[in-house]
Amino acid sequence: MTEATNWQAALQSVLTERISLAPGDLAGHAHDEGVPFTSIPGAVVFAHTEADVLATLAVARDFGIPVTAWGAGTSLEGAALPASGGISLDLGALDSIADIDPVGFTVRVGPGVRRVALNRRLRPHGLFFPVDPGADATLGGMAATNASGTTTVRYGGMRENVMAVRVALMDGRVLNLGSLARKSSSGYALKQLLIGSEGTLGVITSLTLRLHPLPPATVSAQLAFPDVAAAVSASVALRGLGLTPERLEFVDADTVAAVNRHRARCDPELPTLWVELAGRNTADAEAGLTLLREVAADTGGQVVGEARTPEAQSDLWAARHGVYDALRAAWPGHSTRIGDICVPLSALADTVEFMALTLGQSDLTAPLVGHIGDGNLHLLMHAPPDDSGAWARIDHALHDIALYALSVGGTCTGEHGVGLRKRVYMREEHGEALDVMRDVKALFDPQNLLNPGKVVGKLD
Amino acid sequence: MTEATNWQAALQSVLTERISLAPGDLAGHAHDEGVPFTSIPGAVVFAHTEADVLATLAVARDFGIPVTAWGAGTSLEGAALPASGGISLDLGALDSIADIDPVGFTVRVGPGVRRVALNRRLRPHGLFFPVDPGADATLGGMAATNASGTTTVRYGGMRENVMAVRVALMDGRVLNLGSLARKSSSGYALKQLLIGSEGTLGVITSLTLRLHPLPPATVSAQLAFPDVAAAVSASVALRGLGLTPERLEFVDADTVAAVNRHRARCDPELPTLWVELAGRNTADAEAGLTLLREVAADTGGQVVGEARTPEAQSDLWAARHGVYDALRAAWPGHSTRIGDICVPLSALADTVEFMALTLGQSDLTAPLVGHIGDGNLHLLMHAPPDDSGAWARIDHALHDIALYALSVGGTCTGEHGVGLRKRVYMREEHGEALDVMRDVKALFDPQNLLNPGKVVGKLD
Repeated sequence: MTEATNWQAALQSVLTERISLAPGDLAGHAHDEGVPFTSIPGAVVFAHTEADVLATLAVARDFGIPVTAWGAGTSLEGAALPASGGISLDLGALDSIADIDPVGFTVRVGPGVRRVALNRRLRPHGLFFPVDPGADATLGGMAATNASGTTTVRYGGMRENVMAVRVALMDGRVLNLGSLARKSSSGYALKQLLIGSEGTLGVITSLTLRLHPLPPATVSAQLAFPDVAAAVSASVALRGLGLTPERLEFVDADTVAAVNRHRARCDPELPTLWVELAGRNTADAEAGLTLLREVAADTGGQVVGEARTPEAQSDLWAARHGVYDALRAAWPGHSTRIGDICVPLSALADTVEFMALTLGQSDLTAPLVGHIGDGNLHLLMHAPPDDSGAWARIDHALHDIALYALSVGGTCTGEHGVGLRKRVYMREEHGEALDVMRDVKALFDPQNLLNPGKVVGKLD
Repeated sequence: MTEATNWQAALQSVLTERISLAPGDLAGHAHDEGVPFTSIPGAVVFAHTEADVLATLAVARDFGIPVTAWGAGTSLEGAALPASGGISLDLGALDSIADIDPVGFTVRVGPGVRRVALNRRLRPHGLFFPVDPGADATLGGMAATNASGTTTVRYGGMRENVMAVRVALMDGRVLNLGSLARKSSSGYALKQLLIGSEGTLGVITSLTLRLHPLPPATVSAQLAFPDVAAAVSASVALRGLGLTPERLEFVDADTVAAVNRHRARCDPELPTLWVELAGRNTADAEAGLTLLREVAADTGGQVVGEARTPEAQSDLWAARHGVYDALRAAWPGHSTRIGDICVPLSALADTVEFMALTLGQSDLTAPLVGHIGDGNLHLLMHAPPDDSGAWARIDHALHDIALYALSVGGTCTGEHGVGLRKRVYMREEHGEALDVMRDVKALFDPQNLLNPGKVVGKLD
């Protein structure tokens, strides 16, 4: 019997049928949607209760075995992948939805609840949880990576919309961080510290979320611009006019062309914005649209699509949401890797220009989409999986672009998290603060067992 | 020569004319707007540069002397008062305003910049910084206490509106936390940890703030309701209709009566809401007002005042802002002590009822005002300074009310901070998380020299 078998046996003795050593389960917890493969866990625990989480941490502590929390596996940066084996702690079954409070605008959920299911439950109450990273991620995973997305321009990301978390620490304590109050000046913001820590400081076992009323009316519009700078100007001008869109998305000209080919559309193949505006009622939303048309005209753009009904809006947004599928259709068999920088709004146009230049110099093409109201840009890099030359050029280009984002005061990851691949930028982005982050890690997890090596982990 | 003289001499040798031992300066840094007196500092450093801050920390470190940062002295809870002498580090002269970016919606300020001066500078750019705690506090002090106020219902508090801080640590390192990006998933949220830490973890030497466009048009309204529950219902109904007011304030009936007497007004002496609505233009703001009238009617209330011009709005809001003066006029010579709890919106009506009951049982009267959209309630307690019986009853009543707030899932301080007087609730509010907060304090400040005894400090 090896030591590995000892800890597996210890897990089996306390968690019985909730632990799996089946090769399929192990392999299923060794890749996500962005990182093909790292290290296979030695066991998967399918936790159903907080007690299961605590029992897992106790075994991990006793045997010195790493524990990496797992939600839905939708990470693009390997956040939930074990860096060096150990236990994959699957929280998907902690999926209760409780205490929907339509007066206090709150709900309490398990970390395994997925956002689409949550919003389905909230809709009859006239409420929704706005953070939308695209993937049908778990709320626990979204909190762990401080996820955000298309609606963040209006509602903020997870840090603004998680009111409280319950967190199991490595030493067996369970902390309640935050409260049901909408604001507080009480004590240190440990809740914010846990959000975005990617399971390296503790395991979230429950979240209380801040809800929002469903907008009474919405309209959507698609706007085409002669160049990227004009599209950026329009998005800034919108804000100055007191219009805060529900969503404000950007796609570059080549990508519109790719979507046209894939979906047999004939949208103008120009830099394009998709905008969703909400109103107190239809007339109010329409008035916002009128102002939007004026902004477009002032910046040399034009409204090329408008949608009012849910069906029409779904169709209009399909072009924006179809980017990934268009990419897969245009380059069948290619693997993808998605860049994720966020820059100051005042650096957006220059950043897009730098990206185009970098791609050109590297003999690469890549669709560019962005949550432009936040300055968050994604390049959808792609190449055949085995074309090592192309992947080297992709690595190099994304590296240059990440450093560029830092040089203009931005961040190496706007919303996807650090995971395995962004650790290389932590020193450049955070300077000596990285040392303090490592001290904080050591404080919460002195044995370095919680998702070890991630976020602030030292590079090999 | 005592040891105290040694550290004063050391400060004088490096900071020359920027250190004062004058009794007036020392006494001027020993009281704030809420706590009459604690401990007199042994020296005041008037820092003009970050280098002055670092030099002060170096002397404090060498001699083991406490350092308490000071902004404008507008705290109501003693946040900036030395608990046990030492150095008062006055940051008021670090008051530069730089890099106003109307495209990126950011500005960089020194911690000594006051919010009224900042907004005066921003106005020509069509921008403003929304966090408004009432007092003309410094931005550094506001960040240190996670201040918020009347506009938080719409814009959030300091934690949502500080993009980056530069922080001097006790060991001499200077950290840059946060970035110019509007969102990020990079690394641990040390910026959020520093915000609200009341100078116990580090000294903020610079802040980058998130700005907002001035609303193109606003209207204000005053609404009277038959009872508190109706006013609460109206404020919740507003949110459900997609109206997010710029401000949403509550004042109880007795307080409206007191303001009427003091200002010779004749507002209905009923529970009252003040609401400010913004719009894309005047018609849009007016449409919001129409909806507001409907909400009032649906909840049994009525609009008793409307204001459109800046002058008229200023007059209408004067009644809300006149509460403190009316209190002073009604009870001349009384001292005041302001409660500051924040509860879930669903617990608001019950909490107001509990407050009334508690005041009645304690033979006390106190104006009640609230940032009701956030669930933040202030009782303005008052009594003659030397009436020890009344002050004992006030202490007891505020204590019961704070515990009530915690019992319904709220917080003991919505916006004023912990300072000296709220430390007693830290264990009840945070449970074992308080121990982790103390570990974090020890990590940042192992000698316990930064504003020692505050926030997470052990009670004497």
